[in-house]
Amino acid sequence: MSTTDAPAYEVDARNRVKRRHDRGFYDHETVHALLDAAALCHVSYVIDGQPYCTPTLFWREGTTLYWHGSSASRMLRNLSTGEPACLTVTHLDSLVLARCGFNHSADYRSVMAFGQAKLVTDPVEKRRALVMMVDRFFPDRTASLRQSTDQEIKATAVIAMEIERASAKIRAKGVADDDEDYALPIYAERLPIRTVIGAPEPCPRLMPGVARTADLAHYQAGRLLDDALTDAYAEAYKA
Amino acid sequence: MSTTDAPAYEVDARNRVKRRHDRGFYDHETVHALLDAAALCHVSYVIDGQPYCTPTLFWREGTTLYWHGSSASRMLRNLSTGEPACLTVTHLDSLVLARCGFNHSADYRSVMAFGQAKLVTDPVEKRRALVMMVDRFFPDRTASLRQSTDQEIKATAVIAMEIERASAKIRAKGVADDDEDYALPIYAERLPIRTVIGAPEPCPRLMPGVARTADLAHYQAGRLLDDALTDAYAEAYKA
Repeated sequence: MSTTDAPAYEVDARNRVKRRHDRGFYDHETVHALLDAAALCHVSYVIDGQPYCTPTLFWREGTTLYWHGSSASRMLRNLSTGEPACLTVTHLDSLVLARCGFNHSADYRSVMAFGQAKLVTDPVEKRRALVMMVDRFFPDRTASLRQSTDQEIKATAVIAMEIERASAKIRAKGVADDDEDYALPIYAERLPIRTVIGAPEPCPRLMPGVARTADLAHYQAGRLLDDALTDAYAEAYKA
Repeated sequence: MSTTDAPAYEVDARNRVKRRHDRGFYDHETVHALLDAAALCHVSYVIDGQPYCTPTLFWREGTTLYWHGSSASRMLRNLSTGEPACLTVTHLDSLVLARCGFNHSADYRSVMAFGQAKLVTDPVEKRRALVMMVDRFFPDRTASLRQSTDQEIKATAVIAMEIERASAKIRAKGVADDDEDYALPIYAERLPIRTVIGAPEPCPRLMPGVARTADLAHYQAGRLLDDALTDAYAEAYKA
């Protein structure tokens, strides 16, 4: 997935994949594709030595990650001056049942990204980020919405983190037993896990004649969520 | 979901749900049910002031959480003497498209659990944990497997964290627009997200006559992963 000339994140003690280093990737293409296929991440930060792990929606723009929350939240108060953070995305693709306990595993695709999380305070950058917070998932949707009020913009905090270091880690091999164990009469399987889109549920209070919009075309029932998110991302950030 | 007499986690600054506190729950029943419906968690820990957010499989036993990894991993070296950690589980249930950007949201069920993560060093506790690491997901499966070698047990580190504080946070209301916005001709919907089990893929190298085992009965194609995990958990820890 990487070539030696491709843009890649620098490697240091923070992001080097130590355990199972054969599963590690640092090139932008691999790292960014896994980020853009996700809506949910977990962000870790520290307050007084105590780590917190907070789930949130997020998106990427170049080598910057964005997420948001209420201006009142604990995390955001702490991060306003720039605090070290780690944003992690994980796609769980399977549970792997092997012939011994030790080789039980899971297939997954994950990214850990490190940087300094900072509040977006510039009004122009914040307005643009609040548009992309919606449009990254649903291209051009903001144009069809009731405009945000000043109060809403004030109440929403946007966090930006330039990625200083990042790594992807991928396991995609299913059952991998010790050679001598394949001769044992023990059942083993790869149990696929799929995160899919269900049947859309239109708001019961829609005005008459209001139909599903083109910005949602990528989100059809039964599609893999990561495929839909990848396609929507490509459309939202197309040149 | 909670009654005043039900067992609950104490609340302090670590686990109090501050933002949208109406979405917060502290009772064991709610917190444990969300944990037991998951296989994947994200664990946050701190090394030299730098937060790390690591995805891993985990399980619960009473008010203790367990996870594992190679003895060589960075996290485990650091946690061997007991280090503050935060283990978070998130079920993403929908993306919510509202009539303004501010009310775009997601339905989710999450738990944040805080405690001191410690290496399990007692050999008896470690052996039992290595059995439950498999059997919690696939009840009684270990009995049918090739036994673990001393080398494998040595190479697997088990981490235990007694839950000192925990909170659940649940949003499950779909579209929730401002009252006056429902009159606008704008499309809004709840887009369900489902994490489901795919068609099992038996190992291509199974010995002749080896069939899928009863420990996997909960994992049928099309089932919701959290339902399967909940059922398997109940069977594994039945009285």
